[in-house]
Amino acid sequence: MSEIRQDPTTKVWVIIAPERAKRPQQEVKKRRDGDFPEWDKDCPFCPGNENKTPLETFRLPASAPSQPWKVRVVPNQFAAVTAEENTSRIEDGPLFRKMGGYGLHEVIIESPSHNTTIALMPYEQVERVLIAYQDRYNTLKKDPAIQSITIFKNHGQKAGISLIHPHSQLVATPILAPHYNRKFDIAHEYYADTGRCLYCDLIDWDLKNTERVIGETRNFSVIQPYAPHVPYETWIMPKTHCASFGLFPATHLAELARVLKDVLFCLHEELDNPAFNYMIDSTTTTDEESPFYHWHLRIVPRITTIAGFEMGSGMYVNTTLPEDTAQIMKKRMNELHEKEEISITPTI
Amino acid sequence: MSEIRQDPTTKVWVIIAPERAKRPQQEVKKRRDGDFPEWDKDCPFCPGNENKTPLETFRLPASAPSQPWKVRVVPNQFAAVTAEENTSRIEDGPLFRKMGGYGLHEVIIESPSHNTTIALMPYEQVERVLIAYQDRYNTLKKDPAIQSITIFKNHGQKAGISLIHPHSQLVATPILAPHYNRKFDIAHEYYADTGRCLYCDLIDWDLKNTERVIGETRNFSVIQPYAPHVPYETWIMPKTHCASFGLFPATHLAELARVLKDVLFCLHEELDNPAFNYMIDSTTTTDEESPFYHWHLRIVPRITTIAGFEMGSGMYVNTTLPEDTAQIMKKRMNELHEKEEISITPTI
Repeated sequence: MSEIRQDPTTKVWVIIAPERAKRPQQEVKKRRDGDFPEWDKDCPFCPGNENKTPLETFRLPASAPSQPWKVRVVPNQFAAVTAEENTSRIEDGPLFRKMGGYGLHEVIIESPSHNTTIALMPYEQVERVLIAYQDRYNTLKKDPAIQSITIFKNHGQKAGISLIHPHSQLVATPILAPHYNRKFDIAHEYYADTGRCLYCDLIDWDLKNTERVIGETRNFSVIQPYAPHVPYETWIMPKTHCASFGLFPATHLAELARVLKDVLFCLHEELDNPAFNYMIDSTTTTDEESPFYHWHLRIVPRITTIAGFEMGSGMYVNTTLPEDTAQIMKKRMNELHEKEEISITPTI
Repeated sequence: MSEIRQDPTTKVWVIIAPERAKRPQQEVKKRRDGDFPEWDKDCPFCPGNENKTPLETFRLPASAPSQPWKVRVVPNQFAAVTAEENTSRIEDGPLFRKMGGYGLHEVIIESPSHNTTIALMPYEQVERVLIAYQDRYNTLKKDPAIQSITIFKNHGQKAGISLIHPHSQLVATPILAPHYNRKFDIAHEYYADTGRCLYCDLIDWDLKNTERVIGETRNFSVIQPYAPHVPYETWIMPKTHCASFGLFPATHLAELARVLKDVLFCLHEELDNPAFNYMIDSTTTTDEESPFYHWHLRIVPRITTIAGFEMGSGMYVNTTLPEDTAQIMKKRMNELHEKEEISITPTI
C-alpha cells in the first residue's frame, strides 16, 4: 500500500511507500572487479534463484544451455508503486492532494553475472539491456493511466544502490513530474519562438564548436553540458530528432550500447569506478511524437555531495569547467578506439 | 574566478567554481561526542587560529577573558562566488547564458569548541548563532546586486561537510533560483485566489489537526510536512506572517534557538546523530514585505540517498508516513520538557 502526495508549496509529488523500508540493504564498499564473487547463493538476481523474485515480465534467453538467460526483467519486490492502487486524485482537506500509489516498478537484471557492471560488459550484453529497456517501455506505455516512464540506473553506494547484482529500474507513474513539466515548457517555448527543437540546436552547436564533445558516432553525440550540475556529467544524445525513447529505431540500439559502454568505461577508468546514476529522459507517453522534446541519456557521477546550498537555493556549485573535463574524456575515448582492445560485435 | 552558467534546458543556474576544488576535505566518520578533541591545532576555525581565515566580518565577543569569542563570521576562503565579479548577463553564443560569479560566501563559526554541534549546545549559544545569521543577512541584503540569500548548515559526511568544526554558511547571489521562482509562483497564485498566505493557512490547518505537529511554542509551529522528501523532514515555521528572515523580530530569536536545538537534539537521539542539512527559506531581498511568502527553516535528515528515480523524474520516494514519524518526534519533544534537564536561559 503506497500513496502519492503533492507538496502544496512546490507541487512536487512524493511517493510514500512504507513497503520499500523493508528492502534488503547490502553493504557495498568501493570495489574493483573481483571484490565480489561471480555468483552469490543468497542473491535474488543470480541464476538459480529465479524463484526469489516475483514472476518475470521479460526474458532474453541464453544461446547455450549452460546459461539460463541473458537478461531478465521482474517486478520490484519492494515496489514504490503498484498496479493495485487507484489513480483518482483525492482532495485531502482544503490544502492537500493525494492519490493511490498506482504505477509499475520493475527491475532489469542486466546480466547473470553477480560481479560485473556495464562499463565492463561486452557490447552485445549492453545491447540486450537496452532492448529490455525499450521492450518494457513500449509495453508499459500502453496502460492509458501511465503518463511518464523513468528508466534509471544506480551504481555504487553514493548513488543509492541497495543490491550489488547489476540492475537498472523502470518506474511508470500516472504523474508527470514538475521537473519534466518545466523542461517541456522551456523546450515548447523555444519551439514556439524558433520553430526548432532546442535539443537539435544544442547538438548542432556543440558538434560545430567541439569543446564539450567527447565523442560522436553516426547517430549519437556525446557531450558534457554547458552547465553541468556535477563534474563529468555527460549526455548521450541521438542526433536525429526523436522525442520518445520508445520510438527510437531499435536498429540503433547496438550503436547506443557501444557508446554507453565506452563512456561508462572511460568514467570507470578516469574516476576509479565512481558511483553514478543514469537516467533516460524521454517525453510523456501521451506525446511521443512531440516536435519540441528530444530524448537523451544523462549520466551523473556521484563524486560530490548535494548539500545545503543546492537544497536551499535550487542552484548548483560545480568545481570543474565542462570544457576541461570533456578534453580528458575525449582523450580517453580516442585512446580506447586506437587500442581496439574490444572487438565490436553489434548483433546479439 | 568563478562564473554562473544557465542550463538552457532547465533554466537552472550553476556556479562553476574551480577554486572550491582546492578546499581541504577532512575525514568525517560517524561519531558521538568525544570522538574529536575540543580543540585542534590544525583547524582554521579553532581559537588561536584566527589568522588562518580571511578577516572576520562579524564577531560576538566572549564575556570572560579566558575565551576569545563566542561566534565569528568570516568570508569562505574557497568561495563559490566573490564580490570581484561582474553581474551582467553574457549571451554565450545563440543558446547559452552566463555571468560572472558575483556574490558573497561566508562561514558562520558556531562555537569556539571544535567538537560540539547545535543539538548539544546550550540554548544561549544557539541564539548567538541565529543572531549572527540575521546580522549578516541584513548587512548583505543592502548590496543592490543581491537577489537572494541562502543560509544553510551541513552536518555529517552524507550532508556534504568538509570541515568538522561546527559551522553554517551563507551564500548571497544576484540570481533568484528557479526553485524559489516556483515556490513564489505557487504561493502567489494561492494568494491571488484566496487573499491569504498559503503558509499561514498550512500552519493553521496543521495546528488544528495536530497529526503532523511535533511541537508548538508561542511563536513557532514545528511540523513534518504533508509530502516530505525524506523520512523525518521537519519544518520550523513562525506562526505570525513574515516573508523575510531578515525582518523577523530579533526578540524571538531566543525562542527560535530553543526550538531549533530541541528538534535537532531529538533527531540526534532518535536517529543516532544523523547527517542533515537545514536551510532557511526566506523571500527575495527585494520583496521582504511580501504578503504571500513566509520564511521557514527546513531540516532534511540525510538517512536515505537521492538516486536515479529522484534525479530522473523530479519526484521523491519516501518510505515513511510523516504522521507516524511525527508521533515519534512529538513523544521525544514532550519527554525532553518533562525532564527539564537543560535550564532555559534565553539571554546572551
